[in-house]
Amino acid sequence: MKIGILGGGQLGRMFIQEALKYDDEFYTLDPASDAPCHNISHFTQGSFNDYETVLNFGQDKDVVTIEIEHVNADALAELENQGVKVVPNAKIIKTIQQKILQKEFYKTHDIPSPEFEIMDGSSDEIKIQFPFVQKLNTGGYDGKGVQIIHSSEDLRNLWTEDSVLEKLVDIDKELSIIVAINENGETKTFPVTEMVADPKLNLLDFNICPVFLSENVENQINSITSKFLKAVNSPGLFAIELFLDKEGKVWVNETAPRLHNSGHQSQEGNANSQFEQMYRAVKNLPLADTDTFTFSGMLNIVGAEGFSGKVIYEGMEEVLKLPKTYIHLYGKTETKPGRKMGHINVLADSREELMEKLVKVKAIVRVIA
Amino acid sequence: MKIGILGGGQLGRMFIQEALKYDDEFYTLDPASDAPCHNISHFTQGSFNDYETVLNFGQDKDVVTIEIEHVNADALAELENQGVKVVPNAKIIKTIQQKILQKEFYKTHDIPSPEFEIMDGSSDEIKIQFPFVQKLNTGGYDGKGVQIIHSSEDLRNLWTEDSVLEKLVDIDKELSIIVAINENGETKTFPVTEMVADPKLNLLDFNICPVFLSENVENQINSITSKFLKAVNSPGLFAIELFLDKEGKVWVNETAPRLHNSGHQSQEGNANSQFEQMYRAVKNLPLADTDTFTFSGMLNIVGAEGFSGKVIYEGMEEVLKLPKTYIHLYGKTETKPGRKMGHINVLADSREELMEKLVKVKAIVRVIA
Repeated sequence: MKIGILGGGQLGRMFIQEALKYDDEFYTLDPASDAPCHNISHFTQGSFNDYETVLNFGQDKDVVTIEIEHVNADALAELENQGVKVVPNAKIIKTIQQKILQKEFYKTHDIPSPEFEIMDGSSDEIKIQFPFVQKLNTGGYDGKGVQIIHSSEDLRNLWTEDSVLEKLVDIDKELSIIVAINENGETKTFPVTEMVADPKLNLLDFNICPVFLSENVENQINSITSKFLKAVNSPGLFAIELFLDKEGKVWVNETAPRLHNSGHQSQEGNANSQFEQMYRAVKNLPLADTDTFTFSGMLNIVGAEGFSGKVIYEGMEEVLKLPKTYIHLYGKTETKPGRKMGHINVLADSREELMEKLVKVKAIVRVIA
Repeated sequence: MKIGILGGGQLGRMFIQEALKYDDEFYTLDPASDAPCHNISHFTQGSFNDYETVLNFGQDKDVVTIEIEHVNADALAELENQGVKVVPNAKIIKTIQQKILQKEFYKTHDIPSPEFEIMDGSSDEIKIQFPFVQKLNTGGYDGKGVQIIHSSEDLRNLWTEDSVLEKLVDIDKELSIIVAINENGETKTFPVTEMVADPKLNLLDFNICPVFLSENVENQINSITSKFLKAVNSPGLFAIELFLDKEGKVWVNETAPRLHNSGHQSQEGNANSQFEQMYRAVKNLPLADTDTFTFSGMLNIVGAEGFSGKVIYEGMEEVLKLPKTYIHLYGKTETKPGRKMGHINVLADSREELMEKLVKVKAIVRVIA
């Protein structure tokens, strides 16, 4: 089968890597000539935001999917009209890629997400209380396009673009759950992971899986995933990012209609990875079992501050000596501060051992130029 | 690093698939334009048996390795002279690819292998007792180039080419152990696997790992691997195929200087796979831990009798529904009777459960055209 992927980054690369177990042909579209997928797929250099480019790319494929949500969804809708299968479908991509539509989707389907108001120029008045979070309607990614407005003085920093203004949640834990649904309506969820963020880069730092949650919290999460899977009306794999607040209530922060950083530890930690599950969702195959064998965790490998240029990984040989520790690099030749260059997965017999190993690995590795 | 691989078949494909976790460039050489590696590496169509072709292919690589042993070892020796790293080295490839040299290697290093005599035209007399096994000196592969001579009447079937004539072992079990050694001299062994052969195709049918062996048998195997690793004088990954005879004595049947079918279940059954280990041996990195988490087994998917042409896999959706069951196809478009098209790995909590699952899977799958 000819599988086309919009985006040729690391998510696409790991997806193709996993799917090499099967007999398909992979085609990727990315503006960067040295994108991580360029040498392991039939590669087209071009913009996945451009209508004509996406249309031309998709027309001879059996199925088109994405590894980034900021793509031209109108072109995907036209491909659907022309009979090309698109997973996830154009409508849900369009909904999720615009924060305003995404928030309205949660409201419509009674999925708890923080209270919000829309800032789209239709009103000059801001009713929401300080502190609040401003999320740009479009273009946010990896923590960009998001800021906290603490007080009326802060208002001068308010971006003028269309945004969602959202009540700031008093966060106890950031959680994530990856769910999949195929065309037949079969669904599977991965175990919940906890994300520990780096406050400076606003990127994920560690993922930890599984997480021990109270029955009440588990029930809330189950209710969210089942409402989401009923509402989504599209096959695909989705990452639902959650806040657990200090009063024990679970809120949806946002959803990604694709493979997600918070699922990387599934490569070695689960019976099947998010990449395998994505493949099955794309091809409408029976979904894979997501059993956890052990404790698993992930650490992002990001470019160190102050270094730009041809990448050098320090400490990798030392990491390779550690048992049950798995390096995944993304084939990027150039580093810059904060750029995601790879990740390291770790398995352990307990949460304590896991955290110890992750902290140890983090201290060993440095990405310089 | 530029890694060149002689051969572009499934072993190379799974090696590259695994190594996509790291940042290297892979180059493959194979005579078939549609070889399994052709679309996931920089591919050169050409003969790995041809001196000039191998020399030209290898000259601009940082390291050259193999995924098949029937290659031009003289060209590899010349590459070594020119300063190209070759793993495993030309000398051990040359020794192993000729059955006569291979048997003499075992004798020299006091590694137990069945009693033999050499048939190379230097004597007309056959002294070895019936029944014996004739193994062609060169060109044997996947059970080809091997026959049993039962009696003097059978002698008319004796091939005339240079051969080893070997005492027929009264086999209780066929075992295999995969070992690795890097340039630094670090060594690691995988757990022993048992191979259950299909008497008709003479290909592996099931692999089972781990195997319960008496302490005496384990000691014999440890002695063999440690002698082998001392004698081999080359970095690389090697599969040592063993016979356990009915009297409890272990014999080396033969050695492959490469990735091996008997190690495929390591993809999901071990902390790291043979493919990861091979990568580390090739790059002289710390070798990977080979812990077993569970019982694992493998079933070859081979072309059914009576079908040649564009491949159709029957039963695959049913297999995908089974938990802890992993399909690996090799990207071959054409099937023919007995052709290895893929394999299926299975994990289980006991040997009994494993056998049950393997037998079940075998009954579901059929490769037709």
